[in-house]
Amino acid sequence: MRELEEKIVAEGRVYPGRVLKVGSFLNHQIDVPFLTMLGEEFYRIFKDEKVTKILTVETSGIAVAYPVAQLFNVPLLFGKKNKSNNLSDDCYSSRVISYTHGNVYDVIVEKQFLTDRDCVLLIDDFLANGCAIEGLIDLCRQAGAKVVGAGIVIEKAFQDGGRSLREKGIRVESLARIIDMDPEKGITFAD
Amino acid sequence: MRELEEKIVAEGRVYPGRVLKVGSFLNHQIDVPFLTMLGEEFYRIFKDEKVTKILTVETSGIAVAYPVAQLFNVPLLFGKKNKSNNLSDDCYSSRVISYTHGNVYDVIVEKQFLTDRDCVLLIDDFLANGCAIEGLIDLCRQAGAKVVGAGIVIEKAFQDGGRSLREKGIRVESLARIIDMDPEKGITFAD
Repeated sequence: MRELEEKIVAEGRVYPGRVLKVGSFLNHQIDVPFLTMLGEEFYRIFKDEKVTKILTVETSGIAVAYPVAQLFNVPLLFGKKNKSNNLSDDCYSSRVISYTHGNVYDVIVEKQFLTDRDCVLLIDDFLANGCAIEGLIDLCRQAGAKVVGAGIVIEKAFQDGGRSLREKGIRVESLARIIDMDPEKGITFAD
Repeated sequence: MRELEEKIVAEGRVYPGRVLKVGSFLNHQIDVPFLTMLGEEFYRIFKDEKVTKILTVETSGIAVAYPVAQLFNVPLLFGKKNKSNNLSDDCYSSRVISYTHGNVYDVIVEKQFLTDRDCVLLIDDFLANGCAIEGLIDLCRQAGAKVVGAGIVIEKAFQDGGRSLREKGIRVESLARIIDMDPEKGITFAD
């Protein structure tokens, strides 16, 4: 998506280790008109699916998912990151190992909000190693819900998450796919 | 707001210790059309203020604040909860003691996103002892930003936060004000 690539180039900051900061519009300060436009693009891509629920994971997925849920006119459910060992019988839970942030957590949702009648569109801001999305898919599997696909704002295509998910038959649609980045050479997008 | 009080009575669950769970529509599963309607109400209340930014705190404030920012057509900024002692010079920070959750954290925002040119509307899902809102006000004070008021979905009016903020001259507008609740007697709203 050209507008998104231009926004990333204009406002993103690249740090050594292929770290990208986009806090000016995506995950700290939220450019709401811009994210609403991204939501329209996700809706255009997935509108023929009979989506009944948008599922994301806290924190920065929520603002991306909100306008998508508005357009589909369905509830938005966000997985909570539970770092304690207290798990309730009322919740589905899946262990997520985040290499990016170097931590481990359980992503949980209450069982009453995800059922075998749901057709779920997953939404997140970043896809890198794919562990967060894998955790959400696992929650849907436990609930018997159908996953229609995953809509991602920025895919770090030099990491394995996107390829691994697509090989498993998951429809992954990323609005920007970065194949390389460097503080000096800048950002290279997939064609 | 009558529709909100009816929604709380219909879907909320009251537990001993005056704990209210509204995860079906407000802070786990999000009823997006309903929250968009709440956003319209906040806009109606504050529309004569020259709001330049909506400020909330992660996590559950984000979905409440999103439609408000859409209507004002301004950026949404959310304070991050930092539990480590690593504070950057690039951030404003304020210590928050959450009696509700029994923890302490620093709420932080990057300095570049909050300035003395901002007129800020604070938004949050709950107001109880008011510490989170006090922290956001402190961030605005550090930045030299003007606070035009605080829009709250549910105020626990039997706790001190709302009164304390109003005594300091902060305009607090809560869409539902609960003066008592009990698992057996139910929920009592302020007139």
